[in-house]
Amino acid sequence: MTEALSLYVAAFVDGLVQAGVAEAVISPGSRSTPLAMAIAGNPALRFSMHIDERSAAFFALGMAKAKRRPVALVCTSGTAAANYLPALVEAHYSRVPLVVLTADRPHELRDVGAPQAIDQLHLYGRYAKWFVDLALPEEAEGMLRYAQAMAARAVGAAAAAPAGPVHVNLPFREPLVPEIDDGVWERVQALKGVPRVVNGQPTVSDESAAGLYKELAAAQRGLIICGPLDRPGFAEAVTALARALDVPILADPLSQLRAGAHDKTYVIDSYDAILKDEAIASKLVPDVVLRFGAMPVSKPLLLWLKRHRSIRQIVVDDGGWRDPTLSAACMVQSDETALCRQLLRVAEPKAASSPWSAAWREMNDIARTVLRQHLPETEWFEGKVFVELAELLPPDALLYIGNSMPIRDADTFFWSTDKPLRVLANRGANGIDGVVSSALGAGAAAGPLALVIGDLSFYHDLNGLLAAKMHGLQATIVLLNNNGGGIFSFLPQARHEGPFETLFGTPTGLSFSDAVGMYGGRHATPRTWDEFRRQVAESFEAGGLHVVEVRTSRAENVQMHRFLWERVSQEIAKFLEHKGMV
Amino acid sequence: MTEALSLYVAAFVDGLVQAGVAEAVISPGSRSTPLAMAIAGNPALRFSMHIDERSAAFFALGMAKAKRRPVALVCTSGTAAANYLPALVEAHYSRVPLVVLTADRPHELRDVGAPQAIDQLHLYGRYAKWFVDLALPEEAEGMLRYAQAMAARAVGAAAAAPAGPVHVNLPFREPLVPEIDDGVWERVQALKGVPRVVNGQPTVSDESAAGLYKELAAAQRGLIICGPLDRPGFAEAVTALARALDVPILADPLSQLRAGAHDKTYVIDSYDAILKDEAIASKLVPDVVLRFGAMPVSKPLLLWLKRHRSIRQIVVDDGGWRDPTLSAACMVQSDETALCRQLLRVAEPKAASSPWSAAWREMNDIARTVLRQHLPETEWFEGKVFVELAELLPPDALLYIGNSMPIRDADTFFWSTDKPLRVLANRGANGIDGVVSSALGAGAAAGPLALVIGDLSFYHDLNGLLAAKMHGLQATIVLLNNNGGGIFSFLPQARHEGPFETLFGTPTGLSFSDAVGMYGGRHATPRTWDEFRRQVAESFEAGGLHVVEVRTSRAENVQMHRFLWERVSQEIAKFLEHKGMV
Repeated sequence: MTEALSLYVAAFVDGLVQAGVAEAVISPGSRSTPLAMAIAGNPALRFSMHIDERSAAFFALGMAKAKRRPVALVCTSGTAAANYLPALVEAHYSRVPLVVLTADRPHELRDVGAPQAIDQLHLYGRYAKWFVDLALPEEAEGMLRYAQAMAARAVGAAAAAPAGPVHVNLPFREPLVPEIDDGVWERVQALKGVPRVVNGQPTVSDESAAGLYKELAAAQRGLIICGPLDRPGFAEAVTALARALDVPILADPLSQLRAGAHDKTYVIDSYDAILKDEAIASKLVPDVVLRFGAMPVSKPLLLWLKRHRSIRQIVVDDGGWRDPTLSAACMVQSDETALCRQLLRVAEPKAASSPWSAAWREMNDIARTVLRQHLPETEWFEGKVFVELAELLPPDALLYIGNSMPIRDADTFFWSTDKPLRVLANRGANGIDGVVSSALGAGAAAGPLALVIGDLSFYHDLNGLLAAKMHGLQATIVLLNNNGGGIFSFLPQARHEGPFETLFGTPTGLSFSDAVGMYGGRHATPRTWDEFRRQVAESFEAGGLHVVEVRTSRAENVQMHRFLWERVSQEIAKFLEHKGMV
Repeated sequence: MTEALSLYVAAFVDGLVQAGVAEAVISPGSRSTPLAMAIAGNPALRFSMHIDERSAAFFALGMAKAKRRPVALVCTSGTAAANYLPALVEAHYSRVPLVVLTADRPHELRDVGAPQAIDQLHLYGRYAKWFVDLALPEEAEGMLRYAQAMAARAVGAAAAAPAGPVHVNLPFREPLVPEIDDGVWERVQALKGVPRVVNGQPTVSDESAAGLYKELAAAQRGLIICGPLDRPGFAEAVTALARALDVPILADPLSQLRAGAHDKTYVIDSYDAILKDEAIASKLVPDVVLRFGAMPVSKPLLLWLKRHRSIRQIVVDDGGWRDPTLSAACMVQSDETALCRQLLRVAEPKAASSPWSAAWREMNDIARTVLRQHLPETEWFEGKVFVELAELLPPDALLYIGNSMPIRDADTFFWSTDKPLRVLANRGANGIDGVVSSALGAGAAAGPLALVIGDLSFYHDLNGLLAAKMHGLQATIVLLNNNGGGIFSFLPQARHEGPFETLFGTPTGLSFSDAVGMYGGRHATPRTWDEFRRQVAESFEAGGLHVVEVRTSRAENVQMHRFLWERVSQEIAKFLEHKGMV
């Protein structure tokens, strides 16, 4: 009985490893004992323990995102598994491969009131790309090969485009303790039951690509828009394409185009501020747009694309339908890098730069200069944090950005730099949940890590900090504490005096220094920007967990944003008038 | 547009109120603005704000459990809604009525990459008893009556036996801010579109009941077993039935039979210790068992019922199939109190007490005496906390018990008392998640509250403490801190030296005093049992949040449990020998 269990779980774990899984995130439990012990007993797998399954799943999401490969998640039966859902929804929409392994009671203990037995079949609904309820452990060779094959299939399915979470449910009967030793691994490896999975990427025909290129090259006011996307080789490919076509690239902070050694001549990073004014935006309407990645965070950009139906929008997507503007002219199902390279192969570089292209670059310089000039020197301002971090981050650092206000501020204030940095956020479903864990997981895989996060989001996943303590992780967290939900001050709700603070502002009054201490971190509250700079810089040298808390005011924050946007609009309007673009 | 929105959400909220919802638990968000503002604007509804939706849902679960009526839950679109799943799974299995209201994007923004738009249709799968995706707001009278009727239907469906969560998805278009005033309420109330919902309870025919009574009365060794159950009038009805039949009632700590003014002559509370020894248990095999509620927490009891197939087990359940022993002879679908009353109507009380019934009462006295005698006087012992609390709790207090070890210790050490107390726990799926929030929600509805919880479970829902701070709640939390997962020391996994501490013990090394302070609570670490008693007693007088932390050792805890069980087995064996029951 134990032999069947040992061989079967070893076969399954061997299948995961051979299919390319190198990391597992495990939460403690009894029913999951066979899996946990087989993973701990496999030298090819690194694993870490996480008590709170919600945080565990976001940690795995961060790792998988940073590594760009599937990470395994293991939990016991019951509500443990239900705690994974928020991260799986995020992974589904942000296309992050996760292999979720839930231990389960055997069939005879399901739906008969047995303890900790819940219906786990299709527990994640359509948020799992693929689901299988595995057979009970058996030692027949055919069943061991089945376990190996299903493991490989799960990993392959998670990684296939568009990537996402898969769910394998594994029922186990007592006794639950396997005997995992070298002999077990040798026996399952000798079976050679793990097929190699080679996933394809969607690509269009060369004829289609040539047709697309023709259309783009013929445009008078062409534009490339890059939303959140993180693919090897994409930055080089798309910037080369922009140069060949002589078109600006509006680059979201998560497009991986704002930071790095690639050519940034055509990269426009201040379009959110430029397009804020509707009158200005209406003078800058392109004729053809080639759009990659998820929809950028910029709301002015979204509204602009929606408003101007004359824009011929070509959306490139490896498997979804990412067009919230409902105005796409063409949906191209292709791997993004592959399409850029196809287009480059037929490109005939343009001779001179067009006024259209030059104007965008000039406006971008103007916008950035205006913003930089008017940034407060001494007062706290949330947006300025990104200007500072671009300087302070060590090369190859990972900048994780919280949702709600931080990502919007990053859009406006995280400007292009040649420093190699990766910039990530949870933009699948844009939740404020699980951000601490996602960042720590990403940092553990590809740090050094800096996270910028608001106080409600920090509170929401405070449990995530335990991973830093238990696993000795490095993290510099810039906590923007405006005591509540800052974004609501920008919305129409803010005009309702009465219930606004109760329903939307939701001040918690929390002082986080003690909690940070509990998780073995150092907490600092800088009094000046100089102190901020010193504390952030020192945190990277010292390693470990550091929280640098900047206390801001929601009301002042709104005012400063509006002031800066107005200044930019004024200067851009002047420029357009001067250029005769009226 | 705003008028349609205002009338429509007001009609819906009016429907909730008229159908009996009096409490709402809201998490902040933008898309949910219409619902939040209509709820805040309805004087008949109490509401509280909760930032973390996972904790919010467990808080609502606790409230609904304590109030025994549906509570509304409101969140915005996106992963917010996904955070509800753990509590909904628990509510489904513990049959707690919840009305989940998720705000959603309108159809044209679904599955097109719009921000914070996830597929919320049937998001909770079979964990929602009923699901509806509501129409967009319209002001036509027919649509307002539709909104009212769907609200009433949702509340009725949640409360119908077996009770559980329902899910209403409400899409809203911008602008999202309604105008809720007296005129709006008057207009929707004038529609009279809310039907009164009168739910039926399953009951069996009088003939069937008479047949069942006959079978029970004919038993030589009859037994009633009451698992977790909390129904008005049940304690009185079932104890009267036990007296009429002259049969012992093995009463789980969550059966509501161990505490209160009802007749406790036949209530046996130490059966877990008595049945621990297989040889003893095999001498106490009943011929007929009448079982109510969920399966009791006692593993010896479960194994005993499973082992002895001669036991004729009659399971009473209002809608499920609660027989993990897979040995039921008869499944009776009936409301539990109603069935007891039916049986009592045909009962012919027995003249004298049988030796069988007397033996159980004597064994119960012996077990309790032995346990009490051998409880350590000075050293810390987790089980003793329940002996002390039975004395310390004020009348009508609510005792919430954490899963894993606390509920097992309550089974052994929370003995019958005439003091009116309610004893609750999350025994639907037995998760260690969400326990703090569940307890606080229950306490807010029907306190004073004491919660006994282990350190991993406390950590898992530390976020739940924010409710105590934000809403000024009273809670006395006895934190049993043995630095890790204590229950695993009782399992076979504990024999594996190597990975045990890493995979199962999972010590976090957390010191919780600072976190408790952050949430406005007082933290105490008693040095003696006298200090423990004083601190617990004072906490009830002072009100507010108090955490009394008892530091214990996992290893010593296992030893003491085994020592006590052996003492009980010895004395019970002697008794049975003396009685000739060998």
